[in-house]
Amino acid sequence: MASDIEKLDLMGKKAKAAAHKLAHLSTATKNEALLNIAGALITEESAILAANRLDIDEAKASGMGDAMLDRLVLSPERLRAIADDVRSVAALPDPVGESFDSKTLANGLMLSRRRVPLGVIAAIYESRPNVTIDISSLCLKSGNAVILRGGKETINSNTALVNMTTQACAKAGLPDGTIQYIDNPDREMVNHLLRMKWAVDLLIPRGGANLINFVSENATMAVLTGGIGVCHTYVDSVANVDDAVAIAYNAKVQRPTVCNALDSLLVHKNIAESYLPKIAKEWAKAGVEMHCDKRAMNILKEIPSLKLVGSTDEDWGKEFLALIAAVKVVDSIDEALDHIQKYGSGHSEAIVTDDYASAMRFLNEVDSAAVYVNASTRFTDGAQFGLGAEVGISTQKLHARGPLGLKELTTYKWTIMGTGQVRP
Amino acid sequence: MASDIEKLDLMGKKAKAAAHKLAHLSTATKNEALLNIAGALITEESAILAANRLDIDEAKASGMGDAMLDRLVLSPERLRAIADDVRSVAALPDPVGESFDSKTLANGLMLSRRRVPLGVIAAIYESRPNVTIDISSLCLKSGNAVILRGGKETINSNTALVNMTTQACAKAGLPDGTIQYIDNPDREMVNHLLRMKWAVDLLIPRGGANLINFVSENATMAVLTGGIGVCHTYVDSVANVDDAVAIAYNAKVQRPTVCNALDSLLVHKNIAESYLPKIAKEWAKAGVEMHCDKRAMNILKEIPSLKLVGSTDEDWGKEFLALIAAVKVVDSIDEALDHIQKYGSGHSEAIVTDDYASAMRFLNEVDSAAVYVNASTRFTDGAQFGLGAEVGISTQKLHARGPLGLKELTTYKWTIMGTGQVRP
Repeated sequence: MASDIEKLDLMGKKAKAAAHKLAHLSTATKNEALLNIAGALITEESAILAANRLDIDEAKASGMGDAMLDRLVLSPERLRAIADDVRSVAALPDPVGESFDSKTLANGLMLSRRRVPLGVIAAIYESRPNVTIDISSLCLKSGNAVILRGGKETINSNTALVNMTTQACAKAGLPDGTIQYIDNPDREMVNHLLRMKWAVDLLIPRGGANLINFVSENATMAVLTGGIGVCHTYVDSVANVDDAVAIAYNAKVQRPTVCNALDSLLVHKNIAESYLPKIAKEWAKAGVEMHCDKRAMNILKEIPSLKLVGSTDEDWGKEFLALIAAVKVVDSIDEALDHIQKYGSGHSEAIVTDDYASAMRFLNEVDSAAVYVNASTRFTDGAQFGLGAEVGISTQKLHARGPLGLKELTTYKWTIMGTGQVRP
Repeated sequence: MASDIEKLDLMGKKAKAAAHKLAHLSTATKNEALLNIAGALITEESAILAANRLDIDEAKASGMGDAMLDRLVLSPERLRAIADDVRSVAALPDPVGESFDSKTLANGLMLSRRRVPLGVIAAIYESRPNVTIDISSLCLKSGNAVILRGGKETINSNTALVNMTTQACAKAGLPDGTIQYIDNPDREMVNHLLRMKWAVDLLIPRGGANLINFVSENATMAVLTGGIGVCHTYVDSVANVDDAVAIAYNAKVQRPTVCNALDSLLVHKNIAESYLPKIAKEWAKAGVEMHCDKRAMNILKEIPSLKLVGSTDEDWGKEFLALIAAVKVVDSIDEALDHIQKYGSGHSEAIVTDDYASAMRFLNEVDSAAVYVNASTRFTDGAQFGLGAEVGISTQKLHARGPLGLKELTTYKWTIMGTGQVRP
């Protein structure tokens, strides 16, 4: 263990040295490494799948459930999809080197903000092995070195993937230490990593609320957290009922296990009688369980074949990650806004309305990363927003909010070119 | 004490409620409040100076040194200067509401990033009472509520200033809780504030290294730190010696007690013999003490009237905040870059050179908030950079780097306007 802690410190030193070089690599070299990785995901398929098989066997032996198991399975199709994602990252514009807010001051100093990599990024994540490649490729393209710490249930897959990326990077001439993986699953390694502020410029936790809270509370360096989405859709008193059904259905059903899926549906009392039965019947077809407040329950209780449960206090502000929605009838847009302010996690919220003033109030007053009018919250995503791939969705206010794409993995420095100026 | 902790929690609630309203105030209303504050600094002069007199008397009685004492003294002139600064903030463009990265996606969704206030900012700072007004006016203009915690040696001045700003804000119709001050000097109040993540979106410490380190290590919310500047100036092998003398002189002498002042002077061996005696003689006239490495000492030791001391390991990476400079002769620009990487604090560094390749290498490779070619590091300042006033200078990489002006006190949210779009 002690020697593994020393190895981790050494990783930090190697990452810092690599970062210093990565910051000045040409876009062409970084893209070459990315295309090498994409290629190796195909040519090294059998080695990667063999390693993945070890993880699957161990997971089955330990009695892992099918849903969890599915998340860690790789297949030729999944590897091809991951390779395509890496090629997409190669095709994205390089954020590094962009200059902005450039100006010449009255004294002749030429001032710019120049976009530069953050340096060293560490990621702590769970299960899905594709995250290993996603985060590596985004860090590489943005000129950052990365230290990865995946879940212990995917350690064989991740080790095979990182060995492959390391070789692919070396072939393109990238420095040693560009992508490193912590292969000791002991929790003490994470605790030590969280104290490595001297080496790590940004820590990104990806996983459940427990992981994210642990990392936020214990990390000594900057952390970008997110991924916890308690998302509200509010149907206003005057709204197109068909649109409102389609939007709430999509937000809840299209992919219920993700952070931008609907958790709470708020419905104005004036439209509740006409709207709620319609969305309830559609949701029922998809197996959605509705946790209804009293007024919603009164409207819906006589309709056959619905899965209705009386709501409790715990339903508000809860991220279900399942085919469950909390449903509440409200008296006014003010009540909806207050409810969202009280229970939202600052991720994504939507209003469905035909009223211009309501739309503007909702856009102005809801303090979330993404605020929608007449659209599904499921669009909160780097690719959907046109940013390319993402390392996560930030619900913080500092540095970056919403999808974390390439630009969000950079910082800037001020460059000032003078001709001998001194301050009077 | 318990009741004061409860009062602090209440402050947090009031600040959150105020922030919700401040976010939607018109620029005109915010400017009216700022001009009320500027006006009251003049009309309430005698009450403010009387309160300040209490602090001065107490400080004198406690045996405070003249330099420290000078920092807490207010005068009619200083109040007028502070009022002018507030009027300057009123004249700056309002950062809130700006939309950027706007686009219409292929599916018709209209997407924008819209600049919004952070919410509630807390500031913990030392001595100078002008900081109370500086931070209040920048937070107000950027639509943030603020909770202030000044040093106990200025508590009477600060209380008088905050009472005045509170009335000035109320007169403009601003919500209760816009600007609040913690008037209990007990350390436990700070400890509690650092745990109020539920209320405070950003914490800004301003003061010495001890304060900044304590806050960074113990705050549960986001922190923007800075203000610690170990600044290097490197004179390259081919450089205009007169410019290099003027720049190093200005960087060290013009205001030695601030964070962007020169701490270490690195000189290429090829120019050391011609350059060092010249800067040494100029510095000597201003009373600068030079902590020289062996090679610099050998060049300078025969010159009369210099204040020379042999350098020790502690001199490198030290922020002197005084008329002291560490001086080192280096063999190459590589040695200078390595030295800066090892000992710099990421604040401001300058190269003086006539060589284009050296200038480019320095700009590209130095990883600091501000990197200069042929200019004094003293320019790292919000007003000098054309950002208006600043709440500090960030040496972090996340969110904002360098001077923290109005824009750096904001975040953005994504606004998405649709016509019924759902995700396929």
